[in-house]
Amino acid sequence: MRTLKLMAAATVAALLAAPGAANAQESATIGVSIPAATHGWTGGVNYHAQHAIDRLKAAYDNLEFVLATAGSPSEQVSDLEDMMATRNIDALVILPFESDPLTGPVKRVADEGKFVTVVDRGLAQDGIENLYVAGDNPGFGRVAGEYFRERMIDGGKIVVLRGIPTTIDNERVQAFEEAIDGSGIEIIGMEHGNWNRDDAFEVMQDFLSRFPEIDAVWASDDDMAMGVLEAVRQAGREGEMFIVGGAGMKQVIKGVMDGDETIPVNVLYPPAMIGTAIELTALRYVGQVPVEGRYILASPLITQENAEQYYYPDSPF
Amino acid sequence: MRTLKLMAAATVAALLAAPGAANAQESATIGVSIPAATHGWTGGVNYHAQHAIDRLKAAYDNLEFVLATAGSPSEQVSDLEDMMATRNIDALVILPFESDPLTGPVKRVADEGKFVTVVDRGLAQDGIENLYVAGDNPGFGRVAGEYFRERMIDGGKIVVLRGIPTTIDNERVQAFEEAIDGSGIEIIGMEHGNWNRDDAFEVMQDFLSRFPEIDAVWASDDDMAMGVLEAVRQAGREGEMFIVGGAGMKQVIKGVMDGDETIPVNVLYPPAMIGTAIELTALRYVGQVPVEGRYILASPLITQENAEQYYYPDSPF
Repeated sequence: MRTLKLMAAATVAALLAAPGAANAQESATIGVSIPAATHGWTGGVNYHAQHAIDRLKAAYDNLEFVLATAGSPSEQVSDLEDMMATRNIDALVILPFESDPLTGPVKRVADEGKFVTVVDRGLAQDGIENLYVAGDNPGFGRVAGEYFRERMIDGGKIVVLRGIPTTIDNERVQAFEEAIDGSGIEIIGMEHGNWNRDDAFEVMQDFLSRFPEIDAVWASDDDMAMGVLEAVRQAGREGEMFIVGGAGMKQVIKGVMDGDETIPVNVLYPPAMIGTAIELTALRYVGQVPVEGRYILASPLITQENAEQYYYPDSPF
Repeated sequence: MRTLKLMAAATVAALLAAPGAANAQESATIGVSIPAATHGWTGGVNYHAQHAIDRLKAAYDNLEFVLATAGSPSEQVSDLEDMMATRNIDALVILPFESDPLTGPVKRVADEGKFVTVVDRGLAQDGIENLYVAGDNPGFGRVAGEYFRERMIDGGKIVVLRGIPTTIDNERVQAFEEAIDGSGIEIIGMEHGNWNRDDAFEVMQDFLSRFPEIDAVWASDDDMAMGVLEAVRQAGREGEMFIVGGAGMKQVIKGVMDGDETIPVNVLYPPAMIGTAIELTALRYVGQVPVEGRYILASPLITQENAEQYYYPDSPF
């Protein structure tokens, strides 16, 4: 019988002395440019960016960070200019406010030889960034649809709230519809709630007045799920239907942990992906591993069993 | 003018005290299962796995590793059984020896609730692993083809050596052909060299005897490029053609750094991807970031300008 080889602990001295890629232990300044915390999800992005930076600064002496939050695309463009002109960044991690106005400015950063990581919202031109980190939009819809299919084994009537009309929303909804196809689940109403709590509240009020039987709601977003829940509560129809949102909002995750029956599960689309992107970009300077590429984070189903690992009580989202 | 916010250095104490995901700073044992170093690329995999483990053990007190190298699929299956039975691993990082015989055993590890990261060679069933890390095979062919197109602006005659007949090889060759389509570059010979130096030597000898004019060779792999180079040298036709392999073999990278004219560039398909996979799996236990998903590492063109960052002088590959 063969025995497994267990690695002896290496000392830091041995590590630092190890020859290897030129980048190992090189000092580096990483710029992080994100939208300001104007709504729930970007609030989470701000929290997780700060958290990743704090962790990395504590763990590694050779890393410096510049974090800038922008209230508009033009502010974000000027943040990039400042990072290049006054802070001499080596790498940029950016969650673009919007794709079109940031494409040229990010390209200029890349053209200066900086390592560029783009998060969530792609640029309008392919091939600018070295690393792309984003969520899985078809997976987000498919995982929700599979839950509906499994839960509603005998079919039933549901309503769907869609986000802002975008490619992202189309991908999610198409995958959801494919997942429930042939299940006996009937979508009796589908309207855009624009990933907005108030819009979703109004859309759901309309659904409630039109449909005497609603067995479930795919709210497709946690902000919308909050608006839907409020409308259902005001109509006194809470026991009648379950609601599934999505993203990983902490109130929702807490409810799932506690066995909430109205919102029993969630689907992840984590603002913490900004942390993944910052950690990976940092690995370029502390590890000896390739990080260039395309990283699509999964959208797992969050249930009472696994919810704790997705719960960030200190995050605003 | 707005000022950028520079993060104050956080202390380790503050970090450890920070509330957050349940996983932060949790201790964990990560099993790493890879093929033995039977040829060049897997030699690199062994080196980079060990390097990542050494680095992580030095950087983080809460991580333990079990590294096992297998000479056959059945040895790898027994490695997994040992890791589960005697080492109580929390996570598994595996580069499967072959897809089919490992699919069931890896599924059993996942079914026990362990976090599973699969590298390079996928399993025969979707959805088993939490994280998939692999190279970009279409990109590998496309980037090589784009180099040929740019370098051979007036067209020319080339020969191509293919790998073992597999989906991977088909994806690479198809993307290469698309990239040179319409460029005036003519593929006058294309044969399988099976990612093997000796086979490639024989294929190239045949090409050399059949074709009086060969302007370039896409060897599509560094082992094959070594065989091709030997055949070209023995035929005394070194000045006539350039050769492009691929993977990131250190002798080739060194040549590119030094301005070699016969093998002027390389395309990355890095054995160091095992290190990326180990680092990411570890991040699950030291960071507060999601890592589940699908990460396809890029295949950048390696030129004299950027070769140094891909050069690992201590690696056997």
